[in-house]
Amino acid sequence: MVTPVVDLPSTKSAPAAEADADTLARRLRFVLEADRLKSVLRRTRLLDGSRRENSAEHSWHLALMAVLLADTAAAEVDLPRVLSMLLVHDVVEIDADDTFAYDAAANVGKEEREQLAADRLFGLLPDGDAREMRGLWEEFESGETADARFAVALDRLQPLLLNANSGGGTWREHAVTRAQVLRRMEPIRHGAPALWSFVVRTVDEACAAGHIAPDEQQKS
Amino acid sequence: MVTPVVDLPSTKSAPAAEADADTLARRLRFVLEADRLKSVLRRTRLLDGSRRENSAEHSWHLALMAVLLADTAAAEVDLPRVLSMLLVHDVVEIDADDTFAYDAAANVGKEEREQLAADRLFGLLPDGDAREMRGLWEEFESGETADARFAVALDRLQPLLLNANSGGGTWREHAVTRAQVLRRMEPIRHGAPALWSFVVRTVDEACAAGHIAPDEQQKS
Repeated sequence: MVTPVVDLPSTKSAPAAEADADTLARRLRFVLEADRLKSVLRRTRLLDGSRRENSAEHSWHLALMAVLLADTAAAEVDLPRVLSMLLVHDVVEIDADDTFAYDAAANVGKEEREQLAADRLFGLLPDGDAREMRGLWEEFESGETADARFAVALDRLQPLLLNANSGGGTWREHAVTRAQVLRRMEPIRHGAPALWSFVVRTVDEACAAGHIAPDEQQKS
Repeated sequence: MVTPVVDLPSTKSAPAAEADADTLARRLRFVLEADRLKSVLRRTRLLDGSRRENSAEHSWHLALMAVLLADTAAAEVDLPRVLSMLLVHDVVEIDADDTFAYDAAANVGKEEREQLAADRLFGLLPDGDAREMRGLWEEFESGETADARFAVALDRLQPLLLNANSGGGTWREHAVTRAQVLRRMEPIRHGAPALWSFVVRTVDEACAAGHIAPDEQQKS
């Protein structure tokens, strides 16, 4: 799917045409099911504060960032793979819902919920596509390849940008500390190192502005 | 931007580092401005009817479709270019707003509004990025290359899928006729011919169900 298109054969036997119709029907079934990602709400709000962001528009934002920031990646990345990964990385939330990163209790059982969601959702697709899309999602979750490390870095950077430019957002709302934010942002250091000094500066400014709680506050 | 990443040079002179900081700042300024696309509403509603779709989540949906349906394109397409094009194709709506396809009056002056929007929005980016992103948007608008023809086809297919699977949606709401729908869908015949028989069948079914007005009705 992520490789360039294969020209359709100019002559097709009837059974092959049948198979194509089934392939198309299953792909479109997945496309229709994916519509529900527009109703999965994240904690982060839009920059103007008007409402919570949904996971579909969040995924668009990340993919746009990947196009613009590809040269900040730690290693050479395969941009079409990164884009496909970002477009599909949150689809399991249709069944498993979004889990707030700083809520430890909500993260219990997250992996099992998401595996069940992946079974059902990717199972809508033709087998080859299902393997490929699930593979991309699992690669993102593992965060071990250069492509996944860059994709995960963007997934951390985007809410930082929104929080930092809207008076603290979820950091402030949930009294998150500087150490917690920096731990959460750590993948950026490895996946998009050219962005790391920007991240640290942004976190320091948010602390100075009172949008992120200083670490001492938690210890006392 | 759409080409794979270039490794950052390991040693950088101070002026180069300054330039990089400016490049990064301008890219992030654009990324933040792009957040407003999440508040641009289209006429089409989500499949569940709960609300109108916004142009950011619509762009995500198209990009996901491009990954899954690349082999329905008329010619070999450059998938990363198609994805970048789809991710950026509606950004001008931040200033120019979405224009309903079947509203002839609203389409007057659309091009001029969008050119002004493109000047301002792409102008936020560093010059090279601005040229590339604006070039992709203009290519989409012209619809003349294989990549653009496929991208435009998906942009027509997606609202068809939503309308056909939610009781007629904007077709029914605006009493759109079969001939109008087929004219609007025509780019699919050229950009993604493997989808055309599906499109005609879907339109016929929507007519039979009373979700699209028969052509005769308009003539009487």
